[in-house]
Amino acid sequence: MAHMVWGVGGLLNVSGGKFPCLDFAGGTVVHVTSGVSALVTAIYLGKRLGYPQKPMPPHSVVLSFVGACLLWVGWFGFNAGSALGASSLATSAFVATHFAAASAACGWLAAEWLRNGKPSALGGISGAVAGLVGITPAAGFVTPMGALWIGLITGVFCFYMVVKVKNIFGYDDSLDAFGVHGSGGTLGALLTGLFANSGINAIFGSGKATGFFEGNHAQLVNQLVGVALAWGISIVGTLVLLFIVDKLIGLRVSEEEERTGLDVTQHGEEGYDWDVA
Amino acid sequence: MAHMVWGVGGLLNVSGGKFPCLDFAGGTVVHVTSGVSALVTAIYLGKRLGYPQKPMPPHSVVLSFVGACLLWVGWFGFNAGSALGASSLATSAFVATHFAAASAACGWLAAEWLRNGKPSALGGISGAVAGLVGITPAAGFVTPMGALWIGLITGVFCFYMVVKVKNIFGYDDSLDAFGVHGSGGTLGALLTGLFANSGINAIFGSGKATGFFEGNHAQLVNQLVGVALAWGISIVGTLVLLFIVDKLIGLRVSEEEERTGLDVTQHGEEGYDWDVA
Amino acid sequence: MAHMVWGVGGLLNVSGGKFPCLDFAGGTVVHVTSGVSALVTAIYLGKRLGYPQKPMPPHSVVLSFVGACLLWVGWFGFNAGSALGASSLATSAFVATHFAAASAACGWLAAEWLRNGKPSALGGISGAVAGLVGITPAAGFVTPMGALWIGLITGVFCFYMVVKVKNIFGYDDSLDAFGVHGSGGTLGALLTGLFANSGINAIFGSGKATGFFEGNHAQLVNQLVGVALAWGISIVGTLVLLFIVDKLIGLRVSEEEERTGLDVTQHGEEGYDWDVA
Repeated sequence: MAHMVWGVGGLLNVSGGKFPCLDFAGGTVVHVTSGVSALVTAIYLGKRLGYPQKPMPPHSVVLSFVGACLLWVGWFGFNAGSALGASSLATSAFVATHFAAASAACGWLAAEWLRNGKPSALGGISGAVAGLVGITPAAGFVTPMGALWIGLITGVFCFYMVVKVKNIFGYDDSLDAFGVHGSGGTLGALLTGLFANSGINAIFGSGKATGFFEGNHAQLVNQLVGVALAWGISIVGTLVLLFIVDKLIGLRVSEEEERTGLDVTQHGEEGYDWDVA
Repeated sequence: MAHMVWGVGGLLNVSGGKFPCLDFAGGTVVHVTSGVSALVTAIYLGKRLGYPQKPMPPHSVVLSFVGACLLWVGWFGFNAGSALGASSLATSAFVATHFAAASAACGWLAAEWLRNGKPSALGGISGAVAGLVGITPAAGFVTPMGALWIGLITGVFCFYMVVKVKNIFGYDDSLDAFGVHGSGGTLGALLTGLFANSGINAIFGSGKATGFFEGNHAQLVNQLVGVALAWGISIVGTLVLLFIVDKLIGLRVSEEEERTGLDVTQHGEEGYDWDVA
Repeated sequence: MAHMVWGVGGLLNVSGGKFPCLDFAGGTVVHVTSGVSALVTAIYLGKRLGYPQKPMPPHSVVLSFVGACLLWVGWFGFNAGSALGASSLATSAFVATHFAAASAACGWLAAEWLRNGKPSALGGISGAVAGLVGITPAAGFVTPMGALWIGLITGVFCFYMVVKVKNIFGYDDSLDAFGVHGSGGTLGALLTGLFANSGINAIFGSGKATGFFEGNHAQLVNQLVGVALAWGISIVGTLVLLFIVDKLIGLRVSEEEERTGLDVTQHGEEGYDWDVA
């Protein structure tokens, strides 16, 4: 797991180990990068036809819910597995993962309730995923109580990113990849610097403080450096790739194909065949 | 796990340890209480409009089946996890859980076949869940053969509770929470007293008999006391809560809202958006 | 796990241990037998009405996909669990299973892309299942690289069995039980003889070669004997059972029942009740 300590910073070896960025299970290298790339792509591609005038609810909240539940379970393998052994650290990461997902679901639901008058099933699962994203870099470094705080803060933050910030800037992030993975990943990486605890994982040597609240104030800077690098690489890399693909084979389907639907026009495959009768 | 031995009895400390009620993974405190509370609520609320004249089959047997399969897998965590360690007791509880679910499914299907002329997929999964409920208090106390018996008996018993007893008394237990969780939980708690085996878990000290069939006849009384307490607490507690909620914000929606559906009128959210085309 | 070394050969004890057929997790006894039995039954029963003129796409690719994902996860228990312990051999079998499923999905998708111009979601999950089938007998005997080869070869092979060979012979294998399980199982059993590696599992004694590529050329003959026996038993056994059932209660429904659908006419149960409104 030591190889994960340096995260993106180590990947580039830019800081020569001067800014060790804590990232237990890949929050920076998976969620920040994918979320930021999604944002760049959404802006590059432009909006779907009819967005945002036409309401575009999810096709099936039922399937979304089933998917989120499977994701929650699978995430245990992702986060606890990053302990690289059936150790007590794996147990600790497992518990932190569960607590953060649960408290983030509560946070999102509460924010939704206050703002819209009603919590929703879709909000609950969005919050849970936001919490799972937020705890990913922190999973093996924080106490259960730290995990509860990270989840709660990430859940509420991602709700406002999805409901408010997205509308203000007007980008069409159809699956909220940036709103949940990019925003939650960025916030989670910073919160890891705050809540990391040497009692859970003395990654900098026994007796040495790990996180900001323990007294290692520089860790927040380290996390900021790691996150900034991840943002930079993602933005530049995605723009380069989008430009190449756009020139070579094009990125956006025709209006008619978009109206007909991508399943049929691009993949030649439909999800259901229910007119058998 | 020792803290689970006393179950509800210990919770109240009514018996001063005189009636240690065996409950390995929370059959009494989860399934008896929830099932009995559901029955009280179903009677308090009254029937759905149109029940029982209008047939009300499940919305999607396919999704019910997927859900029951996920439940079966998740239950391993619930029951084997109650050993509080990756021990041979956890393995034993895992095996007992699987065997009971399988034999209960067979029991329900056989009873359904005899009575209705045809077994059904819905019956199979109802039986499996009944078996999982029935084995929950017993999981870490019984042999695989004991688990097979507990499953079979619980599966057949719950079938008759759902198909016959519900109709006789006429309560509208729409998800059969009482028929499966309340009835299966109660029966499972009593069967735990019969089948508990000191060879699997010498909870009362090595060499000392655990269950009725081993010679500890008093254990059936202990289980009865635990179950009776769980019933009592659930009935009284549920009535108090229902009364308070009813007076403060009301419990039942209007007839018109019920006809329109609770998803739309109460939650403001629909499961599907399939008229996209 | 030693009891699995002999597979079907040991079951019959025909060869007196002369041809030890390697089968780690039951590829021969589960997939070859079920797939070959399915082929015999499909030929015995004849085609569905309208096949192959009328297109018969899967009812729901979405549910197929969910099912395949659950299958993939469950298969880890099947293959790694065949190490009969939480050992490094279990870890090795786990990794081999995952790699084979992934490379087989890629193989099927590539073959489909080349042949049809487009890869499909249904092709991806069919390939993954083909790879899981192919690696089953080999899981605890091969390196990760061996697993990648077994998966790739099995994925491409099963694609041609399903798309080309089925059409040439004209049997109606509606779920491709033979195309995936029978063909993939047979090929996987033979490839096990090629790729088995004493460095992973010195099943024939330390220092002794296990598979063909290691120098134990006779192993391919052993695998052939095992597979041939599995085919023989399955063909004869299935024909005997089909004949008995056909004479006693009949095997095929009437044309009218087939047109109405087996859910309603045979099981008396429908998957959905979506006309509630």
